[in-house]
Amino acid sequence: MAKEFVEQITSQEENFSQWYTDTVLKTDMVDYSLVKGCMVIKPYGYGIWELIQKEMDDRFKATGHKNAYFPLLIPESLLMKEAEHVEGFAPEVAWVTKGGTEELQERLAIRPTSETIICSMYKNWVQSYRDLPLLINQWCNVLRWEKTTRPFLRTAEFLWQEGHTVHATKEEALAETEKMIDVYREFAENVLAIPVIVGNKSEKEKFAGAVRTYTMEAMMHDGRALQMGTSHFLGQNFAKSYDITYLSKEGKLEHVWQTSWGTSTRMIGGLIMVHGDNRGLKLPPKVAPVQVRIIPIAAHKGGVMEKVEEIRARLASAGIRVDVDDREQSAGWKFNECEMKGIPVRLEMGPRDIENNQAMAVRRDTLEKMPVSLEGLEDSMKELLDTIQKDMLEAARASRDERIFETDDYEVFKDVVGNLKGFVKAPWCNETECELEIKEETGATTRCMLVDEETHIPEGCRCIHCGKPAKKIMYFAKAY
Amino acid sequence: MAKEFVEQITSQEENFSQWYTDTVLKTDMVDYSLVKGCMVIKPYGYGIWELIQKEMDDRFKATGHKNAYFPLLIPESLLMKEAEHVEGFAPEVAWVTKGGTEELQERLAIRPTSETIICSMYKNWVQSYRDLPLLINQWCNVLRWEKTTRPFLRTAEFLWQEGHTVHATKEEALAETEKMIDVYREFAENVLAIPVIVGNKSEKEKFAGAVRTYTMEAMMHDGRALQMGTSHFLGQNFAKSYDITYLSKEGKLEHVWQTSWGTSTRMIGGLIMVHGDNRGLKLPPKVAPVQVRIIPIAAHKGGVMEKVEEIRARLASAGIRVDVDDREQSAGWKFNECEMKGIPVRLEMGPRDIENNQAMAVRRDTLEKMPVSLEGLEDSMKELLDTIQKDMLEAARASRDERIFETDDYEVFKDVVGNLKGFVKAPWCNETECELEIKEETGATTRCMLVDEETHIPEGCRCIHCGKPAKKIMYFAKAY
Repeated sequence: MAKEFVEQITSQEENFSQWYTDTVLKTDMVDYSLVKGCMVIKPYGYGIWELIQKEMDDRFKATGHKNAYFPLLIPESLLMKEAEHVEGFAPEVAWVTKGGTEELQERLAIRPTSETIICSMYKNWVQSYRDLPLLINQWCNVLRWEKTTRPFLRTAEFLWQEGHTVHATKEEALAETEKMIDVYREFAENVLAIPVIVGNKSEKEKFAGAVRTYTMEAMMHDGRALQMGTSHFLGQNFAKSYDITYLSKEGKLEHVWQTSWGTSTRMIGGLIMVHGDNRGLKLPPKVAPVQVRIIPIAAHKGGVMEKVEEIRARLASAGIRVDVDDREQSAGWKFNECEMKGIPVRLEMGPRDIENNQAMAVRRDTLEKMPVSLEGLEDSMKELLDTIQKDMLEAARASRDERIFETDDYEVFKDVVGNLKGFVKAPWCNETECELEIKEETGATTRCMLVDEETHIPEGCRCIHCGKPAKKIMYFAKAY
Repeated sequence: MAKEFVEQITSQEENFSQWYTDTVLKTDMVDYSLVKGCMVIKPYGYGIWELIQKEMDDRFKATGHKNAYFPLLIPESLLMKEAEHVEGFAPEVAWVTKGGTEELQERLAIRPTSETIICSMYKNWVQSYRDLPLLINQWCNVLRWEKTTRPFLRTAEFLWQEGHTVHATKEEALAETEKMIDVYREFAENVLAIPVIVGNKSEKEKFAGAVRTYTMEAMMHDGRALQMGTSHFLGQNFAKSYDITYLSKEGKLEHVWQTSWGTSTRMIGGLIMVHGDNRGLKLPPKVAPVQVRIIPIAAHKGGVMEKVEEIRARLASAGIRVDVDDREQSAGWKFNECEMKGIPVRLEMGPRDIENNQAMAVRRDTLEKMPVSLEGLEDSMKELLDTIQKDMLEAARASRDERIFETDDYEVFKDVVGNLKGFVKAPWCNETECELEIKEETGATTRCMLVDEETHIPEGCRCIHCGKPAKKIMYFAKAY
């Protein structure tokens, strides 16, 4: 046992990508599997996902959505009905061609997303205006045959939620699209402690089959952006391809208006790269599987373990996720491991602390050390966890804000992007050709633009790259 | 709206199978999809599954298990390593042969169960006795290419949980196998209100690759048995095929001992067929998505809807799952629909009730009608729900007990099985050949036998079919 030790993690400055890989593997969040591009989510990583699910699911239900479950497999002909959608997803699909001993007459796609199979059901479920709105969410696995994969950030199979709603009018569907991106934003900020930029995707980057895509984008420690969730206004595109109509109050047959929105285990990648440091993970208390870890000091001394167990039980009863590290390791080793795993608070308790009716609390986010009284510890720990949650959001916000560069100078653009300094916020012509040239020249992609309703472009303002009249204010960055 | 009505459900006596189909479709629990053998679980059915998941998951965690997630796809060579396992599952596997545009060099199976992929990980995770026991559960979808399917009872894709544990000794692994079948039994009785018979499967019926399978079997209203969950002692079979070893305290390299255990959405089929009647579903309060439905009477009269909303809010705050049926239908229509959906309690509230500070409560299980005071309604409703939960278990137990026939007379056996009266409990020789003959002659299968430790066979007792010396006490029945 004594031979084990907390293995070093490559520093972020030395190699951010290696730091990420070291962190996810050494903290036991994930492991690679024998299946190309598929990861195993180990209990510590899955524990974070369960907390994310609970928080999101509560929000979906509070906004009137219900969960359901649709089939994993989609017949090829069904997948192919919406032209743009096919073009976007067909190259990434895994195909089932054999069931048991029989060759299938029609290939079945493993869902890369479920619009098509869900639309085939909605066609029957929606008949009249009384059936609307239809507000359904699904938690499931999806699969996209990706060439390059990284744990959480891009894997062939991943876990996600996908909401699919149907409305009588364009206005209602648009309002739902915006409501759900706002639910995501609020969740990202208040639960993940990740401040995001919300806006629209460009024509090129929007969801295949959508009219308009809302996105939330976060800024990682290495200056790259990460798309954390999207909400799509589908208009009547799918309704027309899948023939989903309803009889209006006025007795007229109308096509419905739809939305879809999704977030995935990818958010955990964001969590790691927004908060983590060279000691490893740093988890916001709301998604930390263990919020407080008690580390006994001189555990062999009389009364220590009894008191530790009493405190553990008290904190657990108060609803705090707490554990005790009673392994046969040195205190120093335990401190390191506790930090590496990103546990928000460690509580050191030795004979002298107990004598003084106190413990030593150490915050993971600031590494600040402070004595806390065992009296009323439930309340002081809850308060401390709340403080950490808020402070982590503010720290992440400050760091994000430092990484936004507003400019209309393409030289500055190239410097920011080339040196991975963060987002460039710039006027843009809204043309795909220009977007592709920028990507070609700098590696930056369009991440997110101010929605039209919030865009005010001064007279004479020109695109940062091509010099044509600007139509949009766009955030550009290199991205995951 | 007035034209709609609660559609009639075929009576159980007329055609039980049609009753089942009518019930699952007309209560909006499921729908058929375009994919052969795959169902859509609609929000009402999925709501039941969510409650089941929560109750089970709490029990798994309380017994020290953690959740994780393993890949959906299993390389063919990996699936093929444990000989008996392959023989059992290979004929039911769906195969992925193409990913994106490339033909795969090795086919990938969609998991029919996850022992093989999980063992390939455990091989690396388990090194020393300090890594044991390893107690992991997974909630996921699995797929088995079934020829004949029925919603919930047998579908190609279904949702389930599968526990996979690793232990240092045979005794520990056996104790875990028994602990988990007991967790299932307690859950079935106290949550689903379904009394089950627990015992072992025969050699022929046990899990492919297991040493011993524990099962819980329930009795449906039509006299057929339903397997509701199984727990397998895997011995060292998988450990040897997948080379999972650990270094013992004594420094010796040993193969581990394993278990696996699972339950699925199939349990919802049992829930329907154990409790349902000719009016439709009858849900035990603990898994009812709506526990109390308030139906306003003369809702247009002043003060009715205000009071109804006040009561709804009070019950909701008390943690009761309550809703209000304020649709424009007749009260009679609403009563019928509420009964069909199996909602445990309906509360009728009209102007006269409100004047008397009361409501009329109607129990779904007994159809008993009783006035209840609005004073302290939170407590009286909770009490009533508890009573219904208990009474439903006792009613199901009485009905199950009436359907167990203990005999050593093969003529009685044939009468019980032939007329679908229930289980036959009988002495049996424990030979597969005899088991196959019984099935051939009567359609009955071996469901579950007393575990050896509880089996006391009197001197001279002979097999009910072949007359050889009896070795086991077996429950036989026709089954789903």
